[in-house]
Amino acid sequence: MKKTSTTYPVSARGPADHEVRDQIVAAATEHFSRYGYEKTTVSDLAKAIGFSKAYIYKFFESKQAIGEMICANCVGRIETEIRAAIDQADRPPEKLRRMFKAIVESSLQLFSQDRKLYEIAASAATERWQVTLAYEEHIQKMLREVLQEGRQTGDFERKTPLDETAMSIYLVMRPYLNPLLLQHSFDYTEQAPALLSSLVLRSLSP
Amino acid sequence: MKKTSTTYPVSARGPADHEVRDQIVAAATEHFSRYGYEKTTVSDLAKAIGFSKAYIYKFFESKQAIGEMICANCVGRIETEIRAAIDQADRPPEKLRRMFKAIVESSLQLFSQDRKLYEIAASAATERWQVTLAYEEHIQKMLREVLQEGRQTGDFERKTPLDETAMSIYLVMRPYLNPLLLQHSFDYTEQAPALLSSLVLRSLSP
Repeated sequence: MKKTSTTYPVSARGPADHEVRDQIVAAATEHFSRYGYEKTTVSDLAKAIGFSKAYIYKFFESKQAIGEMICANCVGRIETEIRAAIDQADRPPEKLRRMFKAIVESSLQLFSQDRKLYEIAASAATERWQVTLAYEEHIQKMLREVLQEGRQTGDFERKTPLDETAMSIYLVMRPYLNPLLLQHSFDYTEQAPALLSSLVLRSLSP
Repeated sequence: MKKTSTTYPVSARGPADHEVRDQIVAAATEHFSRYGYEKTTVSDLAKAIGFSKAYIYKFFESKQAIGEMICANCVGRIETEIRAAIDQADRPPEKLRRMFKAIVESSLQLFSQDRKLYEIAASAATERWQVTLAYEEHIQKMLREVLQEGRQTGDFERKTPLDETAMSIYLVMRPYLNPLLLQHSFDYTEQAPALLSSLVLRSLSP
């Protein structure tokens, strides 16, 4: 059984830790979304939620840790959408097209609809939070899977080392994945998915 | 003969207009480079150069007009370097590789060596100054020329419409051309030129 300190208002019959964490994250998302991430302190947050600062620190070691959890939820949704888009297609070339389209659309949707949440994502990208590294890793993994499948079906060339192909395509996708670049790429988000996935598919032809 | 107002300290025997303009631009470059573009007013500039504000306004209608001229000088140097890199190669594929490399290297050099000048370039890119539009146009023109040459020599495929090919490759180059994207792409500037030009060349194979 997990030992908890008795100085905090958590009893064995109280809500489970993950419930309290979810509650803090939900309240923080709401609060950051209204007042901004950079400007809010853990004290502000504690006051708004009606918890003590010490109680929040029991669950999250810093404001960034709460921000990471909020970001993780956001990128989790984006990853699910990208995965669904890939799975909807049968052939690897179409999977790659859909992946590109889903990346641009989901990122745009998330980052345009809520400027305050975008601010957290921007901090995460600038400071290279763990959630950012994990996100980039997951996208690269999905990309490699599509490439490998395409190599097996004979849709994609096999001469170039897989790592090189994956990294170069990742670099092509990056301006639409990374919120810091995305904010300067709005003028191209309509045409980029089709143009870039066609270019990439031409580069992959056996 | 050009009519000049007698209220300004310019006589028929004084320096030619372009000389005064150059003098203002040189002093402004120096001043912005030390104190930053955003923070400097035309009054500050006038005081630093020892000209009256009215005299400066005779040659430049706004601070932005001076900034545009400074930027034009910067991108002029970058364009010259890119052009030289293209001309050094014989075959279109190698021209494209060198173009990529020169874009990354010249942009990096200019934008990293002087943070204050970078600030002007960032304003130019954010506010879409004329100099930015012209720069993008010139790069696209150089790119189209290399592509056309490669189509004539048989090095590049001819099925895809030239405009589509050019635009998609331009989008691949954009994170290293545009200072707003470049500042978030430093981690990739070493590997990007080789990786991306190889990908692009694979996409162009006939």
